[in-house]
Amino acid sequence: MAEGNSREVVLVTGGAGYVGSHCIVELLNAGYDVVAVDNFANAIADGKGKPVSLDRVEELTKKKIAFETVDMLNSSQLAELFKKYKIFCIIHCAALKAVGESARLPLDYYKNNVAGTLNLLEAARAANVKRIVFSSSATVYGTPQYLPIDEKHPIGVGITNPYGKTKYMVEEILKDLHASDESWDILILRYFNPVGAHESGRIGEDPQGPPNNLMPFVAQTAGGRQKELKVFGSDYETPDGTGVRDYIHVVDLAKGHVEVLKLFKNHVGCKIYNLGTGKGYSVLEMVAAFEKASGKKVPYKLVERRPGDVATCYCNPSLAEKELGWKCQKNLEDMCRDLWRWQEQNPKGFSG
Amino acid sequence: MAEGNSREVVLVTGGAGYVGSHCIVELLNAGYDVVAVDNFANAIADGKGKPVSLDRVEELTKKKIAFETVDMLNSSQLAELFKKYKIFCIIHCAALKAVGESARLPLDYYKNNVAGTLNLLEAARAANVKRIVFSSSATVYGTPQYLPIDEKHPIGVGITNPYGKTKYMVEEILKDLHASDESWDILILRYFNPVGAHESGRIGEDPQGPPNNLMPFVAQTAGGRQKELKVFGSDYETPDGTGVRDYIHVVDLAKGHVEVLKLFKNHVGCKIYNLGTGKGYSVLEMVAAFEKASGKKVPYKLVERRPGDVATCYCNPSLAEKELGWKCQKNLEDMCRDLWRWQEQNPKGFSG
Repeated sequence: MAEGNSREVVLVTGGAGYVGSHCIVELLNAGYDVVAVDNFANAIADGKGKPVSLDRVEELTKKKIAFETVDMLNSSQLAELFKKYKIFCIIHCAALKAVGESARLPLDYYKNNVAGTLNLLEAARAANVKRIVFSSSATVYGTPQYLPIDEKHPIGVGITNPYGKTKYMVEEILKDLHASDESWDILILRYFNPVGAHESGRIGEDPQGPPNNLMPFVAQTAGGRQKELKVFGSDYETPDGTGVRDYIHVVDLAKGHVEVLKLFKNHVGCKIYNLGTGKGYSVLEMVAAFEKASGKKVPYKLVERRPGDVATCYCNPSLAEKELGWKCQKNLEDMCRDLWRWQEQNPKGFSG
Repeated sequence: MAEGNSREVVLVTGGAGYVGSHCIVELLNAGYDVVAVDNFANAIADGKGKPVSLDRVEELTKKKIAFETVDMLNSSQLAELFKKYKIFCIIHCAALKAVGESARLPLDYYKNNVAGTLNLLEAARAANVKRIVFSSSATVYGTPQYLPIDEKHPIGVGITNPYGKTKYMVEEILKDLHASDESWDILILRYFNPVGAHESGRIGEDPQGPPNNLMPFVAQTAGGRQKELKVFGSDYETPDGTGVRDYIHVVDLAKGHVEVLKLFKNHVGCKIYNLGTGKGYSVLEMVAAFEKASGKKVPYKLVERRPGDVATCYCNPSLAEKELGWKCQKNLEDMCRDLWRWQEQNPKGFSG
């Protein structure tokens, strides 16, 4: 590794990924210095060993990002990272994230997401870096016991896939870590359903293989890369029978990260925030909105429910608004328009 | 490492420990070959790099135990282990196990117990060894929702310490692993409260530092190594106000392991068994029984409840009896008498 920075930087793990790259745009725009790390498990490399997504972020922001190839399972890489950079805090996005794959490859998910996070926490503690923002997920709530879901909703019950369990386990580890050593400042962000893309169309979600999540699949169907959308379940107790979720524009989500970082100016303890809009939209509403925004037809077929899916899930986002002064600014139309721009301009994602 | 065995062996992780060493006695007596591994986190070494406990087991059984120093966090040691020995199945006892310490050192517990188990599972899979018995604990049940606790009782809710959470997490990992690959045979044993010692008095529980568990503390108090027993809570809703637990003689527990191994003759899937007597005794009943067995006074003081302790916990052990033909043979008097013999003959444990 080359000579490091002397200014304090924000470390973004999984920095080349969908959420990580959008966070870095907003961090740079807000004046933070960033060191991004990624292991290229999901990211596409340019010819020079950097992720294409981060080349694009540099182009968008006209700022430089320090980048290091680091795997969370490699403790010596992590130790070196904390030696090289003067890290102020960590935004920990690195994780395997495909729900279906997690059921087929549970050990990979538990290793990367849980054991990897333990390595990161040990390396951070050894360097006396005790501020971390963790990318958690609404999936930790399991089957909603009431709606909208606030941060007091029980977690860990009825999570049906290893991916979701890894998020739950890391939350528990972080809470226990804080209980054992209150000098840690820990912010757990429970993402609802991030969608959309940067409005430039230069960065966005780039699933390798057929998308696991609804909206990238919708976009690829509109763009002709997928033939037909399968809508899993049309007999749920929802207005149109399809599942209802709380979609959040990824740029709103990224701005939420910038807001929570301000909490680190003071000693904050361990806090948890939902990041969502508080509004639920059904699959068919999303499809209709996307067709309108793109002017393209999205052929779909109603098929059986998928095991583990819940009917309806949306959050109460008021705690984040109250304590962070943050709320979503972008609406459904923005999500669809920006996603379509990304899809149209990058039909093969970052590999195109 | 030297030349390995050609016969198939049972790998016992944490083999030098309390449960591990007693399991090995019973395995050897039942005709199994054993390779024991330990990292000496809790075990006392003899002058030749072997645990004293296993020297004693060899002396008791007049059989040889292959021993290797292996840390679950060292993947290359694990890979070599599976190369050197032809392992038929694994009894996975290795873990950090002090409840109070786990709250102070959560990362150590999550690393050793969860990440360590992930390493073991990966190494085993790579060697195509897909049979494992896991030492779980009644602590996974959290606060009992009904009594006696059977294997269908919910788990994972209200576990108040990282130690217990590590046991819960490993159970979830094992279940997900089996769901992803049904060629695994996985037996999860939920221990209630193992106490006592081998009736020879040659091996027993040897806590480093003041004991965390009741009965070793009682024994050390009777033996004069501790001044006074603190009884945590005397206002529980129990007959005498002190906490009630399901104590199981460690030799009965060890014999349970030998019984479950027989299931591996066939393809067994993923099964879970409580190992306990099904009877609950209060702290004061245990003290009285120990005083009677030892002829010693055990001075005690009633103090405040400990956070996280439940009033009463005992199991329904009928599933193990029905499916394994196993049940506890030893009673409270046996537990106390054997523990006292161990304590009297080894006032400083294996360091004496």
